[in-house]
Amino acid sequence: MEIDNPEALAEVEAAFAAYEAALVGNDVATLEALFQDDPRTLRYGAGENLYGMDEIRAFRRTRSPKGLARTLERTVITTYGRDFAVANTLFRRDGAPGRIGRQSQTWVRFPEGWRVVAAHVSVIDEPQG
Amino acid sequence: MEIDNPEALAEVEAAFAAYEAALVGNDVATLEALFQDDPRTLRYGAGENLYGMDEIRAFRRTRSPKGLARTLERTVITTYGRDFAVANTLFRRDGAPGRIGRQSQTWVRFPEGWRVVAAHVSVIDEPQG
Repeated sequence: MEIDNPEALAEVEAAFAAYEAALVGNDVATLEALFQDDPRTLRYGAGENLYGMDEIRAFRRTRSPKGLARTLERTVITTYGRDFAVANTLFRRDGAPGRIGRQSQTWVRFPEGWRVVAAHVSVIDEPQG
Repeated sequence: MEIDNPEALAEVEAAFAAYEAALVGNDVATLEALFQDDPRTLRYGAGENLYGMDEIRAFRRTRSPKGLARTLERTVITTYGRDFAVANTLFRRDGAPGRIGRQSQTWVRFPEGWRVVAAHVSVIDEPQG
C-alpha cells in the first residue's frame, strides 16, 4: 500500500482546506457536503456526541456562527492507498488562552469525492512540558 | 467500495477487542503492537498530544496502571474496502460519574496485520438532553 501518494495527498489537502474555510466562515452547506451522508458517519464534538448524518446536520444548523476563527498548528495529513486518509491538527482560539483544540478526521474517497466518515474534536488545557 | 465486508469487519472487531483487553489490563506490549510503528502515527490522548510512535511508547510506559477499568457504550466499527476501518466508542469509568469518554481509532490493514494509525481520546461532561 502506498502511503502519501502525491496525487491523493494533494486531493485530501484541498478537501481539508475547503473544510477549514467553511468552518471558520460557518458555511454550513459546504460543511455538510464534506461529510459522508450516511447513518454510519459520526462526529464527537467539543461537547456533544453525534451519531449519523441527521444528528450532525441538526447540530450544524443551530450552531452559533460567532467565535469560530482559529489558528491551526502541527497539522498532519497522511494518505493510505488511493482512497483513505487521516487528517489531524491542533488549533487555538484567541478567546481561549491556555487551551488547545484537537481535530481528527478520517477521510474516504467515494465516487462523488473525498468525504469525512468520522471526526473527533476536543479541547484540553495546554499540556505541561 | 464495499462497506462492512463481513470478513474485514470480523478482523477489525477482533483487533478492537484485543486492544480493549490490553488497555484495561495495562498490557503495554500489546497496546504498542497494535499501533503502527511509524513517525506518522499519532494519538491525541485525554491530556496529551503524541506525535509519532516514539512519543506514544514513552507515554504508555510511564502511565499509571490504576483506574483503567471502563465500560463501553455505542461502539461503532465500520470498514471501507478491505484495508481501512474506523472504530468509535463512548466509555465510562466508575471513578468519573457524570463524565463520558470518547475514543476514536482509524485502523489500516498492513502486511503484518491491522494497526491503528491515528487515535483520539477525550473526556467531557455528560451532554444534556
